[in-house]
Amino acid sequence: MKLEFKVEPIGIIHSPFRQEEGTPVQPVMSAGDRGWVEVFPEFAEGLADLELFDRVWLLFWCDRAGACSLTVTPYLDDKSHGVFSTRSPARPNSIGMSCVRLVKVEGNRLEIEQFDILDGTPLLDIKPYIPKFDSYEVERTGWYKGEMPECVRAVKRFTR
Amino acid sequence: MKLEFKVEPIGIIHSPFRQEEGTPVQPVMSAGDRGWVEVFPEFAEGLADLELFDRVWLLFWCDRAGACSLTVTPYLDDKSHGVFSTRSPARPNSIGMSCVRLVKVEGNRLEIEQFDILDGTPLLDIKPYIPKFDSYEVERTGWYKGEMPECVRAVKRFTR
Repeated sequence: MKLEFKVEPIGIIHSPFRQEEGTPVQPVMSAGDRGWVEVFPEFAEGLADLELFDRVWLLFWCDRAGACSLTVTPYLDDKSHGVFSTRSPARPNSIGMSCVRLVKVEGNRLEIEQFDILDGTPLLDIKPYIPKFDSYEVERTGWYKGEMPECVRAVKRFTR
Repeated sequence: MKLEFKVEPIGIIHSPFRQEEGTPVQPVMSAGDRGWVEVFPEFAEGLADLELFDRVWLLFWCDRAGACSLTVTPYLDDKSHGVFSTRSPARPNSIGMSCVRLVKVEGNRLEIEQFDILDGTPLLDIKPYIPKFDSYEVERTGWYKGEMPECVRAVKRFTR
């Protein structure tokens, strides 16, 4: 029997990005785009004190991801790599993860900036961004080359 | 009808931490503990080029998390906060996320250091750590106070 776990949306991410084409490929590449997160009322109590953080992680379900491929060519390179060496959404469990700027919290609504998430994406989790846990200096970043253009927008590659 | 998505383990995390008591509460607080990740053979192709990264994100299912509570007192504070303002595993979708040091990749086995994960935890995803996407300077980190002890180990609080 295959072991499975069930996840259920705790909210919906609202964004100006309606399809893969034109969506920033990473949060840092979205220049001033603003969106909002609707947390379902039954989970709103869990947002207490979130407004005291500048940034949060959003975990979300890439509901429009194409079929999983174990080898992919990421947007930011022209060679193929193992999917776990990339951030492609077309992966075994299509969980996306983005560190976004939290502009404001009003009730169950979070205003966000700097994100790369399609409109209507189901939200799975929110975690506070804490540099002590999340920010590391590293020397080796694989195929990723530091000198990237400021803003890379997607074409249709990883969605159905 | 409640919307649900299914996730399935792509591997298992092996660690010296058998129960919540004594487990580091964050990866940075594990001093030299070493573990390994077994990626199931059918997903091993997706690991290509991963060894070129110093660090990776592990996403995992906190299978021993206790019942979700929307208000929790985290280990690193003595006041209660909304669960989304904390990293408590006892959350609506018990997905854990840790940036670990990748020591070595051999076939479908990853040796790791600096982690806070219980032995036998189901692995859901691996993503490369790329500072440009993951490392941010922030001013406001809510209840989290910068001056933390070097190593905080858990007591039984968030597991069944």
